[in-house]
Amino acid sequence: LTWSLEELAARVGGEVVGDRRRRIERIRTLEAAGPDDLSFLTHPKYLDAARASAAGALLVGRRIDGIVAPQIVVGDPSTALAALLAWLHPEPATAPGIHTSAIVGEGCRIDPSASIGAYAVLGEQVEVGAEAVIHPHVVVGDGCRVGAGATLHPHVVLYRRTVVGERTVVHAGAVLGADGFGYAEAAGAGPVKIPQVGDVALGDDVEIGALTAVDRALLATTRVGDGTKIDNLVQVGHNVEIGRGAIVCGQSGLAGSAKVGDGVIIAAQSGVAGHLTMGARSRLASKSAAYRSVPPGETVAGTPAVPIAVWRRQQALLSRLAELWRRLRRLERPDAARENGEDRG
Amino acid sequence: LTWSLEELAARVGGEVVGDRRRRIERIRTLEAAGPDDLSFLTHPKYLDAARASAAGALLVGRRIDGIVAPQIVVGDPSTALAALLAWLHPEPATAPGIHTSAIVGEGCRIDPSASIGAYAVLGEQVEVGAEAVIHPHVVVGDGCRVGAGATLHPHVVLYRRTVVGERTVVHAGAVLGADGFGYAEAAGAGPVKIPQVGDVALGDDVEIGALTAVDRALLATTRVGDGTKIDNLVQVGHNVEIGRGAIVCGQSGLAGSAKVGDGVIIAAQSGVAGHLTMGARSRLASKSAAYRSVPPGETVAGTPAVPIAVWRRQQALLSRLAELWRRLRRLERPDAARENGEDRG
Amino acid sequence: LTWSLEELAARVGGEVVGDRRRRIERIRTLEAAGPDDLSFLTHPKYLDAARASAAGALLVGRRIDGIVAPQIVVGDPSTALAALLAWLHPEPATAPGIHTSAIVGEGCRIDPSASIGAYAVLGEQVEVGAEAVIHPHVVVGDGCRVGAGATLHPHVVLYRRTVVGERTVVHAGAVLGADGFGYAEAAGAGPVKIPQVGDVALGDDVEIGALTAVDRALLATTRVGDGTKIDNLVQVGHNVEIGRGAIVCGQSGLAGSAKVGDGVIIAAQSGVAGHLTMGARSRLASKSAAYRSVPPGETVAGTPAVPIAVWRRQQALLSRLAELWRRLRRLERPDAARENGEDRG
Repeated sequence: LTWSLEELAARVGGEVVGDRRRRIERIRTLEAAGPDDLSFLTHPKYLDAARASAAGALLVGRRIDGIVAPQIVVGDPSTALAALLAWLHPEPATAPGIHTSAIVGEGCRIDPSASIGAYAVLGEQVEVGAEAVIHPHVVVGDGCRVGAGATLHPHVVLYRRTVVGERTVVHAGAVLGADGFGYAEAAGAGPVKIPQVGDVALGDDVEIGALTAVDRALLATTRVGDGTKIDNLVQVGHNVEIGRGAIVCGQSGLAGSAKVGDGVIIAAQSGVAGHLTMGARSRLASKSAAYRSVPPGETVAGTPAVPIAVWRRQQALLSRLAELWRRLRRLERPDAARENGEDRG
Repeated sequence: LTWSLEELAARVGGEVVGDRRRRIERIRTLEAAGPDDLSFLTHPKYLDAARASAAGALLVGRRIDGIVAPQIVVGDPSTALAALLAWLHPEPATAPGIHTSAIVGEGCRIDPSASIGAYAVLGEQVEVGAEAVIHPHVVVGDGCRVGAGATLHPHVVLYRRTVVGERTVVHAGAVLGADGFGYAEAAGAGPVKIPQVGDVALGDDVEIGALTAVDRALLATTRVGDGTKIDNLVQVGHNVEIGRGAIVCGQSGLAGSAKVGDGVIIAAQSGVAGHLTMGARSRLASKSAAYRSVPPGETVAGTPAVPIAVWRRQQALLSRLAELWRRLRRLERPDAARENGEDRG
Repeated sequence: LTWSLEELAARVGGEVVGDRRRRIERIRTLEAAGPDDLSFLTHPKYLDAARASAAGALLVGRRIDGIVAPQIVVGDPSTALAALLAWLHPEPATAPGIHTSAIVGEGCRIDPSASIGAYAVLGEQVEVGAEAVIHPHVVVGDGCRVGAGATLHPHVVLYRRTVVGERTVVHAGAVLGADGFGYAEAAGAGPVKIPQVGDVALGDDVEIGALTAVDRALLATTRVGDGTKIDNLVQVGHNVEIGRGAIVCGQSGLAGSAKVGDGVIIAAQSGVAGHLTMGARSRLASKSAAYRSVPPGETVAGTPAVPIAVWRRQQALLSRLAELWRRLRRLERPDAARENGEDRG
């Protein structure tokens, strides 16, 4: 199966520079691509690699001069790449139906177009929507709802009453709805468990990474909003509420009752303390910890996190501490400094 | 099913202010509660929300003036909340018995009141105590012991000879007893695996979070003491020994051979280096790393962790580096400073 | 079963000091060892414990004076310990064959000496080499290859087309080949998924820790080189390439497209930013974040990571900020300082 550049360009609203009838078989990296492959330039850093590539054609944001291969020029090559990958490299379809080894509890409502894999175990009163795919070894607790078109990869665990929205994807090993980490301090008796009787609800078009944990709420619902993407090994504490279109990168953690607004970006290995608010479209840099609420639109960094301009200035000043000492010592002993020939730094 | 405030108050040793016969159906948050619900105030921060709540009654630590709803006043509302949640929102019971699809190896001793879920796989010589619940898809290695009343949630893995104490709860996806990370450096040949032949033992009333890993010891036993609570995605290295009633929050890690005393609190995303000791009731702040032993009762913070008072002072001084430079420059060029009209800071 | 010291010493090229015919049953810690046990001294820190040990014999790097127990003296006691543990405490063998409950897809080629455990699910066209062990509940996607002698512990998930090299060990719950975390930013529409159509390949003699995630590449292959050891709860992003004999400690993360050279050591809870290179045999300290490429052989620390000598100096200067302020104030007000009797500190 091959496609002409003309077809591909039409698909993404792009324009072909060069031979419109050149045929493409698949998409490969700049290094690996050959004459039957389309490659792409989404970051100026790789311009030299693009010039050197043997790709049969290139997807670009603006025309590259001085190369022979034809180009598809589009306004946003990343989004165009996403569309072409989905088209040229579709996921293999999963056959609908319930595998004979799957265990389905009483009162479940499984859409006939859904797929339930080998050894999946569904509790009672579970609902699974049209074309949802539940892979082998998934465990779904009583009263859960899995939306139309959702995918639960192998070994996902949903504790009771978890809701997964439409087209939402949960990667292997993720655990949704485990107990929140809440204890009372009984004097002298050590931590006393506070039963966690709430649940978890993921919106539509959410993605949850492999081995990520989203704890259920103490009483109400831990929520992840529509279109939000969460990476691998992330911890989402009880009662957390995440808005729409947010991004939470790998190994980050949101402590209990944190509120994360629409479009927030939390970079990798960062933490948000409990009971605070990250305003809409605010950002937390990687390896940072927000201990205070962050206003909408603001970017913060460091531990404790401060506005990124402040953080950058601090880092610059930190790297000049030795100079600070030198200059202080010169002031303390001006004669010695002059003798040693130190310059004024 | 409903309960009178009188019954509830008696249960937790509290006193009712207002109508003792008001009947309660369940416990809800201040925002969500209606006339049939009990809500609670455990943190003064939510006093306004408590006043505004439509809850039928409130559980409080001290009487709130000026509200109409009856109140249950107790000395420790958090512990009382824990008790009432367990009473009003009990976990659904699991039927005893071994699911027909479970595989049980030779020489196992399973108490008839225990529950072994679908597709659970138990090796040989496994002991499971009274009323223990082993959920679907749990894998238990040869020679493990699971104490009375313990719960292993779906997809938990116990490597051989792991011991789980009574009433201990292990959440979904946790892995107990995987190999410790130990290698010898053979000259020129890269890391050489040191076989890890020890095991893991959890005490009674322990809780292990989802997707947490506790590695088995090199030769002896990695131990988690009675009543200790470990959150999600925590790493406990080989040979670690944790005492009683300790708390380890999400995404923290304890490196090999660390010793953590009774009642220690390790906040989220922190690390304890190998071969050191956290004294009894010491505390490690979040996003911090202890590279030296911490005396009993001390609280440390930062990377490397220092006593928290020192850390706070350092943070304050850090935020004043720009001022330090301004004042230094003024000393260096007193005339210029005066001309520029800088104030004395 | 017991062994004479003579036999053990021959096995590791060591020399016996004392009774060569003393017989040993197993290896234990210095504290736990009795007269039938061998113990060992691999770190001078434990010399006193070695002297006090009741062990029947000791494995040492150089002869300890003044102890009665016979000693095996070898050049590298850690490597010798690894060899003797493997010999005296062998892993129990797993019976070859495919468990009746395992599901094996069409076109699979399973070596007859391989072991496929209970409830394992293999997709289509999977290859499993000689003596490989696939434990219960492992899920292997279409087109995966598992090398001879490899071990996949319970609950491991391999997404389609993952390659696992010979003798490579993957611990429980690890997920290989989940989608990389790649999104385009469509103006106003939130993050748009970029399909991840590549795969993952692990070399030979690799070890992957429990609950570690290695994401598949966008288009090509995420690679882990021969002999590299990765600890628990580690995140390896899409397109990452790790060389041979590297070590990545617990809870660390490598962001997308990072390149990690041969023999690199990444200590615990650290992060490597995307698209950068850690040169061969470079090292990243624990709890640190590398935001720039690191030259071969260099050790860096801190966030952002800097050469470790720079980091140490910064830490020293940081701890002296209070002193800096005192001396600055004395310069600003020399008379006041003298009156207060401050020493020249």
